[in-house]
Amino acid sequence: MNPMKPSVGVCYYPEHWPETQWADDAQRMVETGLQWVRIGEFAWSRLEPQPNQFNFAWLDRAIATLGQAGLKIILGTPTATPPRWMLEKHPDLLPVDQTGRVRGFGSRRHYDFSHLGYREEAARITRVLAERYGQNPYLGFWQIDNEYSCHDTTLSYSAAALVGFRAWLATRYSTIETLNQAWGNVFWSMEYADFAEIDLPNLTVTEANPSHWLDFRRYASDQVVAFNQAMVKAIREFDQNTPLLHNYMGRTTDFDHFKVGNDLEAASWDSYPLGFLEDRSEDPVEWKLAFMRQGDPDFQALHHDLYRAVGKGRWWVMEQQPGPVNWAPFNPVPLAGMVRLWGWEAIAHGAEVVSYFRWRQAPFAQEQMHAGLLRPDSEPSRALAEVKQLAQELKQHPDFTTKPAPVALVFDYESDWAWTTQPQGKTFSYFRLVFEHYRALRRLGLSIDICPPSTTDFSAYSLVLVPGLMAWTQSLKAALQTTKGLVVLGARTGSKTRDFQIPNCLAPDCPELINLKIAQVESLPPSYTEELLQGGLIKNWREYLSLPQDTSILLSNLKHEPIAVRQNKVIYCGAWLDLEGYLQLLEPLCHELGLTTIRLPDGLRLRQLGQGVVAFNYASETYDLSLLTGFSFDKTEVKAADLAFGRILK
Amino acid sequence: MNPMKPSVGVCYYPEHWPETQWADDAQRMVETGLQWVRIGEFAWSRLEPQPNQFNFAWLDRAIATLGQAGLKIILGTPTATPPRWMLEKHPDLLPVDQTGRVRGFGSRRHYDFSHLGYREEAARITRVLAERYGQNPYLGFWQIDNEYSCHDTTLSYSAAALVGFRAWLATRYSTIETLNQAWGNVFWSMEYADFAEIDLPNLTVTEANPSHWLDFRRYASDQVVAFNQAMVKAIREFDQNTPLLHNYMGRTTDFDHFKVGNDLEAASWDSYPLGFLEDRSEDPVEWKLAFMRQGDPDFQALHHDLYRAVGKGRWWVMEQQPGPVNWAPFNPVPLAGMVRLWGWEAIAHGAEVVSYFRWRQAPFAQEQMHAGLLRPDSEPSRALAEVKQLAQELKQHPDFTTKPAPVALVFDYESDWAWTTQPQGKTFSYFRLVFEHYRALRRLGLSIDICPPSTTDFSAYSLVLVPGLMAWTQSLKAALQTTKGLVVLGARTGSKTRDFQIPNCLAPDCPELINLKIAQVESLPPSYTEELLQGGLIKNWREYLSLPQDTSILLSNLKHEPIAVRQNKVIYCGAWLDLEGYLQLLEPLCHELGLTTIRLPDGLRLRQLGQGVVAFNYASETYDLSLLTGFSFDKTEVKAADLAFGRILK
Amino acid sequence: MNPMKPSVGVCYYPEHWPETQWADDAQRMVETGLQWVRIGEFAWSRLEPQPNQFNFAWLDRAIATLGQAGLKIILGTPTATPPRWMLEKHPDLLPVDQTGRVRGFGSRRHYDFSHLGYREEAARITRVLAERYGQNPYLGFWQIDNEYSCHDTTLSYSAAALVGFRAWLATRYSTIETLNQAWGNVFWSMEYADFAEIDLPNLTVTEANPSHWLDFRRYASDQVVAFNQAMVKAIREFDQNTPLLHNYMGRTTDFDHFKVGNDLEAASWDSYPLGFLEDRSEDPVEWKLAFMRQGDPDFQALHHDLYRAVGKGRWWVMEQQPGPVNWAPFNPVPLAGMVRLWGWEAIAHGAEVVSYFRWRQAPFAQEQMHAGLLRPDSEPSRALAEVKQLAQELKQHPDFTTKPAPVALVFDYESDWAWTTQPQGKTFSYFRLVFEHYRALRRLGLSIDICPPSTTDFSAYSLVLVPGLMAWTQSLKAALQTTKGLVVLGARTGSKTRDFQIPNCLAPDCPELINLKIAQVESLPPSYTEELLQGGLIKNWREYLSLPQDTSILLSNLKHEPIAVRQNKVIYCGAWLDLEGYLQLLEPLCHELGLTTIRLPDGLRLRQLGQGVVAFNYASETYDLSLLTGFSFDKTEVKAADLAFGRILK
Ligand SMILES: [Zn+2]
Ligand SMILES: [Zn+2]
Ligand SMILES: [Zn+2]
Repeated sequence: MNPMKPSVGVCYYPEHWPETQWADDAQRMVETGLQWVRIGEFAWSRLEPQPNQFNFAWLDRAIATLGQAGLKIILGTPTATPPRWMLEKHPDLLPVDQTGRVRGFGSRRHYDFSHLGYREEAARITRVLAERYGQNPYLGFWQIDNEYSCHDTTLSYSAAALVGFRAWLATRYSTIETLNQAWGNVFWSMEYADFAEIDLPNLTVTEANPSHWLDFRRYASDQVVAFNQAMVKAIREFDQNTPLLHNYMGRTTDFDHFKVGNDLEAASWDSYPLGFLEDRSEDPVEWKLAFMRQGDPDFQALHHDLYRAVGKGRWWVMEQQPGPVNWAPFNPVPLAGMVRLWGWEAIAHGAEVVSYFRWRQAPFAQEQMHAGLLRPDSEPSRALAEVKQLAQELKQHPDFTTKPAPVALVFDYESDWAWTTQPQGKTFSYFRLVFEHYRALRRLGLSIDICPPSTTDFSAYSLVLVPGLMAWTQSLKAALQTTKGLVVLGARTGSKTRDFQIPNCLAPDCPELINLKIAQVESLPPSYTEELLQGGLIKNWREYLSLPQDTSILLSNLKHEPIAVRQNKVIYCGAWLDLEGYLQLLEPLCHELGLTTIRLPDGLRLRQLGQGVVAFNYASETYDLSLLTGFSFDKTEVKAADLAFGRILK
Repeated sequence: MNPMKPSVGVCYYPEHWPETQWADDAQRMVETGLQWVRIGEFAWSRLEPQPNQFNFAWLDRAIATLGQAGLKIILGTPTATPPRWMLEKHPDLLPVDQTGRVRGFGSRRHYDFSHLGYREEAARITRVLAERYGQNPYLGFWQIDNEYSCHDTTLSYSAAALVGFRAWLATRYSTIETLNQAWGNVFWSMEYADFAEIDLPNLTVTEANPSHWLDFRRYASDQVVAFNQAMVKAIREFDQNTPLLHNYMGRTTDFDHFKVGNDLEAASWDSYPLGFLEDRSEDPVEWKLAFMRQGDPDFQALHHDLYRAVGKGRWWVMEQQPGPVNWAPFNPVPLAGMVRLWGWEAIAHGAEVVSYFRWRQAPFAQEQMHAGLLRPDSEPSRALAEVKQLAQELKQHPDFTTKPAPVALVFDYESDWAWTTQPQGKTFSYFRLVFEHYRALRRLGLSIDICPPSTTDFSAYSLVLVPGLMAWTQSLKAALQTTKGLVVLGARTGSKTRDFQIPNCLAPDCPELINLKIAQVESLPPSYTEELLQGGLIKNWREYLSLPQDTSILLSNLKHEPIAVRQNKVIYCGAWLDLEGYLQLLEPLCHELGLTTIRLPDGLRLRQLGQGVVAFNYASETYDLSLLTGFSFDKTEVKAADLAFGRILK
Repeated sequence: MNPMKPSVGVCYYPEHWPETQWADDAQRMVETGLQWVRIGEFAWSRLEPQPNQFNFAWLDRAIATLGQAGLKIILGTPTATPPRWMLEKHPDLLPVDQTGRVRGFGSRRHYDFSHLGYREEAARITRVLAERYGQNPYLGFWQIDNEYSCHDTTLSYSAAALVGFRAWLATRYSTIETLNQAWGNVFWSMEYADFAEIDLPNLTVTEANPSHWLDFRRYASDQVVAFNQAMVKAIREFDQNTPLLHNYMGRTTDFDHFKVGNDLEAASWDSYPLGFLEDRSEDPVEWKLAFMRQGDPDFQALHHDLYRAVGKGRWWVMEQQPGPVNWAPFNPVPLAGMVRLWGWEAIAHGAEVVSYFRWRQAPFAQEQMHAGLLRPDSEPSRALAEVKQLAQELKQHPDFTTKPAPVALVFDYESDWAWTTQPQGKTFSYFRLVFEHYRALRRLGLSIDICPPSTTDFSAYSLVLVPGLMAWTQSLKAALQTTKGLVVLGARTGSKTRDFQIPNCLAPDCPELINLKIAQVESLPPSYTEELLQGGLIKNWREYLSLPQDTSILLSNLKHEPIAVRQNKVIYCGAWLDLEGYLQLLEPLCHELGLTTIRLPDGLRLRQLGQGVVAFNYASETYDLSLLTGFSFDKTEVKAADLAFGRILK
């Protein structure tokens, strides 16, 4: 599955620096042990300064200089930043925000995925680049565009989006009667007589129909997929061989990454552990304080596993944080050692390349406070030595065998859109629900595979978790019915049809798997939790189960009402639990399945790889490895921000 | 006053269900003990699918089916949800929000009260319905429109509103000089030369003139009244007999409900105790947690008393919460018993009908997570049994004598607009101020009547409270002067003229009632409270009283500065007090008046009805009724969410 | 420097009151001891009710009445409130907010500084006034406009601003290539081909280039300066002698006050201690509670010192708070004595006049809840007696000798714009950083001079502090190199070029003063602080210093990493410290310099004036003055809200 020995790379912007510096930069990259360099992604204004007036000479020389120094090139297409002149040709290409305001030129991602004129312009420059560089001997990968959806750009409320959405609906539903039925438009007299009467779902008096929202989100996601496909097609006209990837962001769920990934050879993502902890985590302030300089111990791991799935096994970290970033509410310096540790964690999850962002800190423009491997004055930042160490260690380390993990966790982008549209409780977040399942599994020392809902074969897995899935497909039900492992469903799984209606037989809507009905649900304020008889708490969300007599109760509340239940190999969990609750639910199941688990402390994490294991210490104190019964390691303790290799004693 | 024995009803949407199900639904309603069914309120797109193409056949059959089963019909006019084709005729009928954005089609209440074209359309469909169903034997009531003002729709900043407002001002002031004088426009050079120069008060550089805001709010309220009058007129062309009501919301103060109520035979409102607690209460998180499954013990009671006044004695609960709703930040399940308790509390306040929302939970569209008496799969939800019990108990229970309570509390919508415009302290809320007076009275076990400021006769009352009244009318002063009971004024009462100016003789501006002046006021941050010598605290708001020598001091602070004072039968309270403070003020007055009071615990409430009394237990624990000295009950204790009947020992 | 004995004044609006009342008002002002009266500032609609139809008769009589009573007039030009008819002539004069919404007529400051048509209108009315009143015998001062920038009006995103900004950029950069280079527009393909392609920096997809923002802020500030210059020119056509001032606000930094001040003879500002504490302070709720009725003990003092610099030595308090205001979130009554104390503190800082806002509380319009010296019913408010006492005391008190303080603190408006644009940590505020340096100095009992960054001679100062300066000018470096005193730089000083790029040799970018480099910086969340070995804490911001061997370490963290260091007479502080940290840094330096310092308690403050000293008690308890070793006072203790005069024992 992993065709190359893992290696280390860097992001570089030759157009930001005097050409006289390029050779020296290349030389230092090689000396650091870097093998890949990403270039080109935002350089449109330098490649085509005026419409159809191209300037490739500088890029030719940059590629030659880097390539001749021994670096492989990943070339980015520049479509995330159309130059200013594009606005003269397509004044209406700008995205529009939910309040109806046009989002202007002057930063990046200033285009609307629905704008077909821009899509053609983007394909045009991509074609030109593919023709010129597709056969370049140093080219090893293409990156198409960059960070789709970043800065909330999947959803645009433009005229182009309105036209596209109506056509998309007409295709989906054929007749307006079908749409009215699917959306339940008889409610509140919302019935339409024609697709041309349908508006975008923003700016309604009170909330719009959730079916309306869900279809708009599907439409918007499809435009990202279609945009990407147009770029793939453009490259493949001239270059049939170089592999393609897109570089995704963290906790970005507005389009279906699996669908974009299906058209590409690999995935990559941006791993900013400190930025994400500050910016994208619901964890309490004490947790953020404890991991302020290390990042959340599970957030990156989940994304590694997610993007391994999006990349169908082939994936990179394209941008690895090397020091403070510029964009989080607070931007601290990482604990010494974390830059190396983050790299190793990615490698242990199967990354082909860990590429740092960026070679040298830019002294100008929006990201001037974003650290690089070099300071703006070209002196090394502290990260450089850690990257060098990582590169050396990688060369000496035997390859990891990447094979399926014992546990599968289904992640479904549509479910995120559904529950964002209809959280029912202010704190309900699909991403967070999945994350807390992931965290519990990882606290038990397990390795996890994230799987798309289109998975048809779970036979490799002992345990499959499907929390919060909005709606079933027949194929997913079939896959779960035929798998040999245990299946954990809920909370909220199967609670809607694909039209965003409550299913006739109520949630979880899968008599094929488990015979029960959710009679009633409730969302709970943060001030309220409910104890489980078995330990742990219910929070955020609770369901009232209507059960047949012979159902086994795995968890119940103090009133002995059933919370998690089991019928044969299928478990249904009718609540959002805290960490202890999920451990109470999952630990016995793992034991039954013969999986090696251990309750890890807050800051220690394992990655099990067959019989091998790596321990990562995210804590700021040393950890005594002899406490990890069932494992043996190459050292007796692991220092803060350090790691240890070992094996499972079995 | 109450012409019918109280009964139970339900809201039903035949257009949401297959016609084959109607008869069975009707049968089950009757078996549950329901006597009324509300239908039709959002069905315009089914009644008039295209302009002037009507389809009444289905509604004819629905009414017949329900009526023949034994149910009385309350028929809603569908004007809260104009169909999509209405926008082709009147593209400018949509409301505009305070930031200037048009609020689009796709939910409900998407019309502007100032739009005269839509007003005529609404009257047209209402006329057609009145003609067809006005003489229908099953029709028992008309409901005009639904929930005026919900989703912040009283105030619209549209072109239609601007035109209407200017004309309204011209009528009110005759000359622009009069307006300039009334508003004090010499301040900041705001003087106008013509009514046509006046804009709406939104989007000014800093806050607009409060007189400008108040007049705009009066204008907007008048449009609701005028819209409603046009509907009344439309019905009365064809049906002179069936009584009319409008269904109001909770804590909705943007229009003068008393004025709308004056044109109707009755009032009804939507009682959602759990949703309102989460969504519309300033109470601290501990209070919300304690009553999370019961609702605030006083919030519904206040509204019952308010809408009894709006309905001039005749009122319903039209929508009673049956389980979790979909719209509050968090939506928990009610404590078992509360569905019945809420119904009884309404009945004890004089409701003619308690109607539950809704018969069956809809599986589609915006309210699919709103519980009903039936689940979406037609099985009973837990509420159904409680409603059935209530219906049975009502049949057996002797009628309550509804007669005036001993205490009157004046509620004035204009004062709410005034203090929203000029709170002076961020936490000042007129509604909240009145509510805390209400709560204190109810903590003493008293029954209360809410009275409009237009009340001319308080002779039935021992005690009249007028907190926070913005401006006096001569008639109100006269009514208070001539009443025999005690009168409690303040804080902030009489602090403005009707033009929103400080009165010449300063607040409370009523030498006819009490001889004192408010020399100075202050608003207080939440971190600051001040102790009263007599017990209790000052919070939010304090006034400095300038008094003649012979004034008695009822409450003072630790510096012996007067806080509440008395001259003969008039008391003035120059501060916002906490609960203990209000009890210290009111308890001795009640004692002097011979009213039966008792200090109730947090969760217990009484409704005194002549010599009868009902005890409602909102707490989650059993309460020993023998602790209620002065009362005797039909049981020794009242369980959580239960009630007890008794009488006053006197 | 101070040409007049300090005196007391008041703001008065004759147009708000019947003419019959003027003479009595004037008489009472004189009896109170007031010597100055400010009038006219918002009276345009009364001076020019229709275009070019003037009405000066009333103002003639008002001036005569006031002047003949013995009062000196400060006459405000009315340009802060263009009358409604101005919109007919210039419909596009209205400012536009950052979201693109036009900010309408109906309050004040409804004009755009970029609108040249309005600038000419403003100059026209100013010219007319200067011609009529420039030689009036009672006129003592002109006030131009009022409170520039109040209500966020410096930055407007209008068409006029766009046109002006493009022209301003063309002047600044000459060629578009120079601009592209200065802004680093190669980043994200932001390069422009023409100045006409540049938009305003608002409403971009993600944040705009910080250089773009900084230039827009410079442009906007320049428009305020140019507007003011046009008014100066208009007055000087007819009146070459009467001194000019502008009345500034508190904590208003959107334009460069020093540049406006350069064109005027004096400065004045609005001192609202209670309003500012509630509205404009980051201090914790406990601090706000402790000083709720007194105001922050340092906030006004800093502004007094700042506006003394802006006024080049001549300055007033134009609006001194007399009681509760109307505009803060909460508006409490001042502690008895504070109205006098605030006046004395201003005088001790060198104010020529302390003028109270306003004579009589207006009963109408937006500020009707703003206290005055008289109540709306013309009775005295509590403040009147305190003002009278102050006026009497001033008459008897010998003049203060105002001479330079021993400490200079550089304040730079551009730095505020820079760090607002790029805080890097959510809590980074330039104003606050300077304020906390100021507070530490004042806690040591020191007097401080605020200096502009254009200062060329610091020879009068023992100690010069330059915290957070964005970018050096050669002249400032030269001034600091040649001064004899100690110089304290940092945090963040010299970290940018004037183009908003990181300097080639990194911060602090001043080898002329100190030889070190900031290798790395971090911003810190509020939950995180780091202890200093010497006492005190690091918070908000920390830098990692790269130092030569021979640098002395003044402060370090527990890991012995250098935080504050010294080379010869220059100290660099690489962190934001808490109060104790700054005291640890500054106290030994003061000791070395022979400055008299003492650690004052929370609520006591000193103003040292040569050998004299005044003690101000902002606390709500009496303070024993014998605890202030090194000083002797005219009394043994100072009561809450009182002051004491004394001298330094040396
Ligand atoms: Zn990136
Ligand atoms: Zn409703
Ligand atoms: Zn002012």
